Amino acid sequence: LNHRLRGRSSDADARFVEKLAERYQLDFELSSANIGALARKKKLSIETAGRDSRYLFFAKVARRRRCHTIFLAHHADDLVETFLINLFRGAGGAGLAGMREVSSRHINNAAMTVVRPLLGVWRKQIDKYVRKHGIAFREDASNRNLNPLRNRIRHRVMPYLEKILGRNIRSAVWRAATITSDEKAWIDKQVPCLAEMQFSVEQLRTLPVALQRRAILKWLRMQNAAEVGFDVIERIRSLLEPDTPIAKVNLARDQHARRRAGRIFVE
Amino acid sequence: LNHRLRGRSSDADARFVEKLAERYQLDFELSSANIGALARKKKLSIETAGRDSRYLFFAKVARRRRCHTIFLAHHADDLVETFLINLFRGAGGAGLAGMREVSSRHINNAAMTVVRPLLGVWRKQIDKYVRKHGIAFREDASNRNLNPLRNRIRHRVMPYLEKILGRNIRSAVWRAATITSDEKAWIDKQVPCLAEMQFSVEQLRTLPVALQRRAILKWLRMQNAAEVGFDVIERIRSLLEPDTPIAKVNLARDQHARRRAGRIFVE
Repeated sequence: LNHRLRGRSSDADARFVEKLAERYQLDFELSSANIGALARKKKLSIETAGRDSRYLFFAKVARRRRCHTIFLAHHADDLVETFLINLFRGAGGAGLAGMREVSSRHINNAAMTVVRPLLGVWRKQIDKYVRKHGIAFREDASNRNLNPLRNRIRHRVMPYLEKILGRNIRSAVWRAATITSDEKAWIDKQVPCLAEMQFSVEQLRTLPVALQRRAILKWLRMQNAAEVGFDVIERIRSLLEPDTPIAKVNLARDQHARRRAGRIFVE
Repeated sequence: LNHRLRGRSSDADARFVEKLAERYQLDFELSSANIGALARKKKLSIETAGRDSRYLFFAKVARRRRCHTIFLAHHADDLVETFLINLFRGAGGAGLAGMREVSSRHINNAAMTVVRPLLGVWRKQIDKYVRKHGIAFREDASNRNLNPLRNRIRHRVMPYLEKILGRNIRSAVWRAATITSDEKAWIDKQVPCLAEMQFSVEQLRTLPVALQRRAILKWLRMQNAAEVGFDVIERIRSLLEPDTPIAKVNLARDQHARRRAGRIFVE
């Protein structure tokens, strides 16, 4: 699979992968999209627009070919960088979501299993393997431009931290990220299924704080609430307090969460 | 409460707090210990030896005065720094344990409740309050020497990150740390009480990964196993695999975890 992004080198990337697929007698699928225009239209970052578009392509191919398992080549350094990006950017209400070796995703009503078999392998090890076996490869030029925050973390923050702290930060962060992802995934499974449009205050109050946050996050996402961050979730949690004078919390796009008759709902 | 550490300024710190207590008609307790000697003897870092010794003092006073709630003045910057220290240091098998507003601790069979009411207040806000109200205070000189890693994070890493990433890292890390702490605390409560000295492989296998790690960590601590890190826990988890050829995992101090007759135990 290759997803063409605009730019000089993406055609060459596509040709390279196509030839590789031919050589190994594998099927080849190609799609292209104007990510810049999409990002402007949907008011997303280039990186988010690119990812959304990529997953839509995966879902389309998955449906057509009845093949619902996608393998992605994220490696250990990607895992560490993504964790730090989420940490430093605030990570929204979900906290430190991470990449997992096996995860599920729903795209356009298609259930897909995403497998990342290289999460435990460092970029250095891959480079070494590639050199040792004389394997031809292409560096994705868009990697350098897609996410300035990722680039700054990769090229400036990581080397600085390792120099100043004098230790292998990468392994430590990798372990913390892996433990945290597994714990988050498990917690998510414990959140009661609250498919109703209205939330019972009584029911929410009985949950521990950690599950309240997860339940509110899940529920807001079901209502298509935009920009759900920690502050919004904490304000909705304040609606649960017995003596709270607050009965309304502002959300983005002129939406509100409101408590009335023992329930919370979005309007 | 003031806990005297060796050094020129600690006597002056103690006198300052004693006078403050007199002025507000509060009881005053003082204890001193040679932390350097303790650290050398027990092979602990100065910071860990200091903390252990401080909590022992708290427990002693708590028992004598029948007062089991301890208030500590950790603020939001402490929370953020501690989270980053745990993250960059590897944080052991427990992952990113954090400071919580209310937590429980057992010291020498005494149950204590530790309350940290200032975790949501930034050092800057405290400084401002102190200036505004002309409050006399003393800077703990030992703060500067106790933990070189904390100092480097406070004085070099935080300012660098905020400069390079051009955003308020502190708030983002504070939110992530708070969410993570609440989730960890809840997960800890879900870990089955495995007070037996021997661990059932069958029983452990039924747990999700996140709880397996927590259960193994809790169990190893009950066995007084030393230096329990992520690697040790993952190796013990490998003993659970049905077809594993591994039946023994080395621990520190010549101890081993061994699988035999469907159980895991330390010997």
